[in-house]
Amino acid sequence: MKFTLVHTDTSARAGILETGHGVIETPIFMPVGTQGTVKAVEQRELIELGAQIILGNTYHLYLRPGLEVMKAMGGLHSFMNWKRPILTDSGGYQVFSLTELRKITKDGVTFKSHLDGSAHFFTPQKVVEIQRTIGSDIMMVLDECPPYPCDEEYARESNKLTVKWAALCQKEVKITEPLYGHHQSLFAIIQGSVFKHIRSDSAKALTDLDFEGYAIGGLAVGEPAETMYEMTEFTTQFLPKDKPRYLMGVGTPENLLESIERGVDMFDCVMPTRNGRNGMVFTRHGRLNMRNAKWKTDEAPLDGDFDSYTNKNFSRGYLRHLFQVDEILALQLASIHNLAFYLWLMREARKNILSGTFAVWKKEMLESMASQF
Amino acid sequence: MKFTLVHTDTSARAGILETGHGVIETPIFMPVGTQGTVKAVEQRELIELGAQIILGNTYHLYLRPGLEVMKAMGGLHSFMNWKRPILTDSGGYQVFSLTELRKITKDGVTFKSHLDGSAHFFTPQKVVEIQRTIGSDIMMVLDECPPYPCDEEYARESNKLTVKWAALCQKEVKITEPLYGHHQSLFAIIQGSVFKHIRSDSAKALTDLDFEGYAIGGLAVGEPAETMYEMTEFTTQFLPKDKPRYLMGVGTPENLLESIERGVDMFDCVMPTRNGRNGMVFTRHGRLNMRNAKWKTDEAPLDGDFDSYTNKNFSRGYLRHLFQVDEILALQLASIHNLAFYLWLMREARKNILSGTFAVWKKEMLESMASQF
Repeated sequence: MKFTLVHTDTSARAGILETGHGVIETPIFMPVGTQGTVKAVEQRELIELGAQIILGNTYHLYLRPGLEVMKAMGGLHSFMNWKRPILTDSGGYQVFSLTELRKITKDGVTFKSHLDGSAHFFTPQKVVEIQRTIGSDIMMVLDECPPYPCDEEYARESNKLTVKWAALCQKEVKITEPLYGHHQSLFAIIQGSVFKHIRSDSAKALTDLDFEGYAIGGLAVGEPAETMYEMTEFTTQFLPKDKPRYLMGVGTPENLLESIERGVDMFDCVMPTRNGRNGMVFTRHGRLNMRNAKWKTDEAPLDGDFDSYTNKNFSRGYLRHLFQVDEILALQLASIHNLAFYLWLMREARKNILSGTFAVWKKEMLESMASQF
Repeated sequence: MKFTLVHTDTSARAGILETGHGVIETPIFMPVGTQGTVKAVEQRELIELGAQIILGNTYHLYLRPGLEVMKAMGGLHSFMNWKRPILTDSGGYQVFSLTELRKITKDGVTFKSHLDGSAHFFTPQKVVEIQRTIGSDIMMVLDECPPYPCDEEYARESNKLTVKWAALCQKEVKITEPLYGHHQSLFAIIQGSVFKHIRSDSAKALTDLDFEGYAIGGLAVGEPAETMYEMTEFTTQFLPKDKPRYLMGVGTPENLLESIERGVDMFDCVMPTRNGRNGMVFTRHGRLNMRNAKWKTDEAPLDGDFDSYTNKNFSRGYLRHLFQVDEILALQLASIHNLAFYLWLMREARKNILSGTFAVWKKEMLESMASQF
């Protein structure tokens, strides 16, 4: 994998990330395909939307279809017929969310499946093995994501474990080979909750180990947005300029623009698809709740001349009807539109970074998105 | 509307039906779009599949979005952005299915909405008014569909009502105008349960009234397939050759081929989409239950080189996984494939009628579809 920083504007970065499945232009948003599909969106539609990379969830794929099937089917790219890059998380975040069902030791985490209660043990080595079997282009280390709020002592000890596990994952990657002929990178995850000195310790320890990319984890877990921005800005200063930076699980369109300005290159979030399925659509002029009766006979598209299949072909009134009567097409059209919006926003951000107009564009965009329908 | 009988082979017919929204080549299968969407399938996908006409359900559209919205949005074509022909049922079938909630009188049927219990009254005049508001290219008369089995007396009286209501619908169509500038045809519905002399009475009375097309109703309601074929074959002999014939609510691919051979031109059924959503896919070589564990690591497509997005891009193993984990994409891909299969089957039937090889092709196709996976 090769990352080239093409241009910087404020702290915002336009880059190019080259992988075994093609090139990714950053900043980039990665649609979430938890179980080997981006919910309600077809693979050809992801291509049409300009998705350059998608995310898969190791925890879910490990449970179903499971490693045996994944291997027999030639890995996730082949299984789901997706020829562009894939990033997988380590499964850690999902496992730690099973608060009642898991137990952390220094060697890893024992957990019970949310599906059938069966017991499993994830170690740094194991999550690399699973991601080797999935065949993702970018693998993530096993980390512990502390809850918010957490005390300083917990955050410090937790981060030590995260750094230790990162080193073990890195070692495992070095002594194993990809299964499907393409290179698999490993990204480290910086933790430290909202404690700056732990964040800087984490960043220094992990950059010393020299990973192919760095994620900022443990944010967007309940802290105020301002704290998230502060931590992001603080953390990126310790990260090498020539490596990609990934802010995990973020966020709203506003969050993305603020974080790009603070030096982040990559994002993932279920928001465009999950909120879409719940009837919320994102537009250049703010959010619409499609279940609202006020759209009943509204013949206008969601957002003027915006380029999405949904926007170009259907009215607010029709989409409102589809949500009203619980039709699957509602979920499809809202997901397509929201992903189109997120991916467009990243392309526009990149254009404006390249032309040195990011700050002005960002201000206008935030104002526009804050308008009320 | 103009129907041209192009060629006959055995009793199978190839025709051309010209409507205000374009030409339909028969025999044709009409995907069911109950609430203004064919479930889990996008409008552009219906085009890609070669759908020439779709069906809307008057009962459902009358309740939601309702006539006020339908009118404000310029009718169903405009509302759902579907530029090809639409056929609507009269709502009668759905209303009569509400056995506990409806009451029939000679003037019409009173019923309570399955959604909120509100009371409504459908008359022959009312269902024409609703279908005028929907703006379907082909409207259906209000009929009573007797349950199966029913006694001869009930079937006779019920058919009398159906014929009377058909005449009232026809009269209403004559004294009203389309709302959206395109012609709307009215088809009559022949009833009579499984009693031949009532079927012939019904056919004679309705053809005397001279409708633009004739449907055979009251079949596929629980009677044996052989009885359905016998009734269809018996009924078509009383129908004018120069008018389209529509067998309502039928059926399996096998049912379609048998009925085409008995002189039917048009079909609708929820089977390809509903069964698809339940994990059953139709292929040239029989049916597959995609929930079956035996497909777990099957890398083959559903059906060899068959031309559907699903078949060309995804394996049985992947589709099985999507059903296993309850992903929306499972519903999309199975629905697309099944509709592709039904529409392909109709195109092949037509080709073989035109080339005079229908009987041979039909026999081979039935044998092939009867094979076991």
